Amino acid sequence: MAALTFDLQTTDSASKARAGKITTDHGEILTPIFMPVGTVGSVKAVTQKQLYEDVKAQIILGNTYHLYLRPTLDVLESAGGLHKFNGWHKPILTDSGGYQVFSLANNRKIKEEGVIFQSHIDGSKHLFSPERVMDIQRTIGGDIIMAFDECPPYPSDTKYAKTSMELTHRWLDRCFTQFNNTPDKYGYTQNLFPIVQGSTYKDLRKASSEYIASKGATGNAIGGLSVGEPEEMMYEICALCCDHLPVDKPRYLMGVGTPWNILENIALGVDMFDCVMPTRNGRNAMLFTSKGVINIDNKKWEKDFSPIDDGIDCDTSNYYSKAYLRHLIKSKEILGLTIASVHNLAFYLHLVTEARKHIQQGDFVSWKNEQVELLKTRL
Amino acid sequence: MAALTFDLQTTDSASKARAGKITTDHGEILTPIFMPVGTVGSVKAVTQKQLYEDVKAQIILGNTYHLYLRPTLDVLESAGGLHKFNGWHKPILTDSGGYQVFSLANNRKIKEEGVIFQSHIDGSKHLFSPERVMDIQRTIGGDIIMAFDECPPYPSDTKYAKTSMELTHRWLDRCFTQFNNTPDKYGYTQNLFPIVQGSTYKDLRKASSEYIASKGATGNAIGGLSVGEPEEMMYEICALCCDHLPVDKPRYLMGVGTPWNILENIALGVDMFDCVMPTRNGRNAMLFTSKGVINIDNKKWEKDFSPIDDGIDCDTSNYYSKAYLRHLIKSKEILGLTIASVHNLAFYLHLVTEARKHIQQGDFVSWKNEQVELLKTRL
Repeated sequence: MAALTFDLQTTDSASKARAGKITTDHGEILTPIFMPVGTVGSVKAVTQKQLYEDVKAQIILGNTYHLYLRPTLDVLESAGGLHKFNGWHKPILTDSGGYQVFSLANNRKIKEEGVIFQSHIDGSKHLFSPERVMDIQRTIGGDIIMAFDECPPYPSDTKYAKTSMELTHRWLDRCFTQFNNTPDKYGYTQNLFPIVQGSTYKDLRKASSEYIASKGATGNAIGGLSVGEPEEMMYEICALCCDHLPVDKPRYLMGVGTPWNILENIALGVDMFDCVMPTRNGRNAMLFTSKGVINIDNKKWEKDFSPIDDGIDCDTSNYYSKAYLRHLIKSKEILGLTIASVHNLAFYLHLVTEARKHIQQGDFVSWKNEQVELLKTRL
Repeated sequence: MAALTFDLQTTDSASKARAGKITTDHGEILTPIFMPVGTVGSVKAVTQKQLYEDVKAQIILGNTYHLYLRPTLDVLESAGGLHKFNGWHKPILTDSGGYQVFSLANNRKIKEEGVIFQSHIDGSKHLFSPERVMDIQRTIGGDIIMAFDECPPYPSDTKYAKTSMELTHRWLDRCFTQFNNTPDKYGYTQNLFPIVQGSTYKDLRKASSEYIASKGATGNAIGGLSVGEPEEMMYEICALCCDHLPVDKPRYLMGVGTPWNILENIALGVDMFDCVMPTRNGRNAMLFTSKGVINIDNKKWEKDFSPIDDGIDCDTSNYYSKAYLRHLIKSKEILGLTIASVHNLAFYLHLVTEARKHIQQGDFVSWKNEQVELLKTRL
C-alpha cells in the first residue's frame, strides 16, 4: 500500500497537454481523465456495471457534504468505507464539502475555526472545520481527499478574494497537520490534494499556486473556476495556475465543464476533471455526442432511428436510437434518464481517451482545434 | 414464420400445474412465465440489457393505450414496430387498451361501436373499437395481441356483469373478423388471444370460457380478476375458467399478482402472468425476496451489508447490499428505483422458473405450499 504516484508519460510539444498515469491502491488512472460525480455514493441513474462497462470510468467522485448527512459516517464506517458500501472498487475522490456548504446548506457562518451550517435535509446544525473534514474524509475512505477551502463567488473584489485565499491557506496548514496525524482507516493509502484559490486575480492565483506547490502533495487542484466568469478568463487563470504548479504531479481542475472546456484546459496542462454537466444536462435532454450537441426533446429526432452516437465505444449509445430516447424523455420514463446519463458520461470518457491518444501521437493541438468546433455544433 | 404453438410438456399429478413451451416467431417462452410490464415501450427504470441478463425475461408487455398516445402509431410504424423501436428482440404481448381506457382516460363513453375517450395527456378525443384496436395492435407489432374487452369493476351486479360479458363477446367476434381480414405487418406472425370475462359469477364465467374456447385461438386469457375481489374468490373463478379453457393452449391470467398469487394460480392451470407489482412496489421500497417481503425503507436494514437477495441468480440482487439500496431509496436516488425494479422482476422470473422445475420434478404442490408461507413472511 503506497501513496499515489504520477508517471508523466508524454508532454505535447505544441501545447502544455500531458499524458500520464496515476497509480493508487485501488488501481491505475490514465490521464487526462474525467471523473463522473457520484454525489451521495451513486452516479445519478447509472449502475456500477454501466460505469465499468459502458462509461469505462476509471475513478469517480463522492461528495463529502452529502455522504456525511446521508447515509452518515456511522453507516459508512460500519460498511468499511465507501468502496465497500457502493460496490465501486476503482479509485474514489471525495471533495471537501466546502463547495456544497456554500451552495446548499442554510444559515452558514464562516469563522476562523470553520463553517457552521444547517443541513438542507433536516435543518440540523453542523460544524465543518479543516480537522473535522479530514476526519470525515478519512472515514468516507476516498483514495484522494480534498483540502477544506473557501470558494469565493464570482465576481469578488480583491480584498475579499485575498482574505478568503489567506483563510484557505491557513485552513490548508491545519488540514495537512490533521491528515499527517491520522492513520489510513481501511488498509489503503489516502492522499490529500490542496486547492489553489484567489478568484480571478493573477497575483493572488500566482501566490496561491506557489503556496499550494510548497506543500509537496501527491497532486494539486485548481478551485474557484467555472463559477460564472467568462470562458477566456477561466482559461487565462487556469494556464497561470498550471504554470506555477509542479510538473511532476497531477493537476485537477475542479467542476469543469463542457467538452470544449475540457479540451482547452487539457491543452493548458490539466490532467483531471469532474463536472455534473454530463449527468445533469443528460437528465434535461441535452446530449453531447461525437457529432455535436443534441437537444433530444426536439421534434426533429422523432423518427431518427439511428443510434444515439455510433462514434463512441459504448453499448448503450450504440444500442438505443435517438427516436427511442426522445420518446422516453418526452414520456418522463426513468429509463430515459439512465440512457442519457450513461451516454453523456461515456462520451466524456471517450473524449479524454481520444485526447490522450492524440497527445501520445503528437497531433493533439490540431485535433483539439477541430474537435472544439465540431463538438459545439448544435445538431 | 408461423402461428404460435404450445407444447404441453408436463402436467402435475397433484395439481393442475403445467410446464410447457410456447414458440413464437421471436423465440421460445418456457411456461409458467411472468411477463414484465413495459408500459410505454420501457419496463420502468430497467434497461433492455438488464431485462435480458439480470431479469432473464422471455417476453414483455406493451400497453396499447399508452403506446397509441406516445410515441404514436406513426412513429412505431416508421420504426418497423415496437421490437425495432425499443430494441427488445424477444416476444412482446400487447394488451388491448381496454383496461387503461377504463382506468386512466377521461370522459369515456361505452357504446356498441366501441369506447370514446379523452387522452389523459392532452384531452384529445379518440375512439377505440374492436376493429380499431386490432389495427393499432397490428401496427404496434406484438407477437401476441389481445381482444378488446370491457373489464367490469368489482363488485358488479349480475345484470351489469351479463350485459358487459355479452358486449365483450360481440366485440370479440368483430376482433376476430378484423384480425383475420388484415395481414401481419412486419413479416412475423401475430396471434390474437380472446379474454374470458363475467365478473365473479360462476355461470357467466363458465359461459364466457366456453365461448372463448370455441374461437380456437392459439392462446386464451382470463380477465377481470384481481380487481378488488377476495383472494379466495379469485382462485375459485380462475380454477373454473381454467377447467373450461382448452388444455392444449396456453392460459394467461391478466394482471395477477403477488408471488403467492402466482404460485396458487399456477396450481390451478395458469401458464402466463403479468403485473405491475414488482416494478411499482419496488419503486415504493417493497422488495419480494427468496426469504420473504422486505420494506427496504425500514431502519433495520441501515447497516445490513448482506446482498439484497443471494437466493436468486441475478447479478444486481447479489451485488448490491440491503444497506446501500436502503440509502439510495431514502435519498431518492434514481439508481435505487432501478436496483429495486431489477431485483423484484428477477425474483418473479426466478419464482416461475423454480415452479417449472418443480412441476417437472413432480414435487410442485409441496414446494408451492412451503413457498407460499415463506414468501409472505415480513422480514
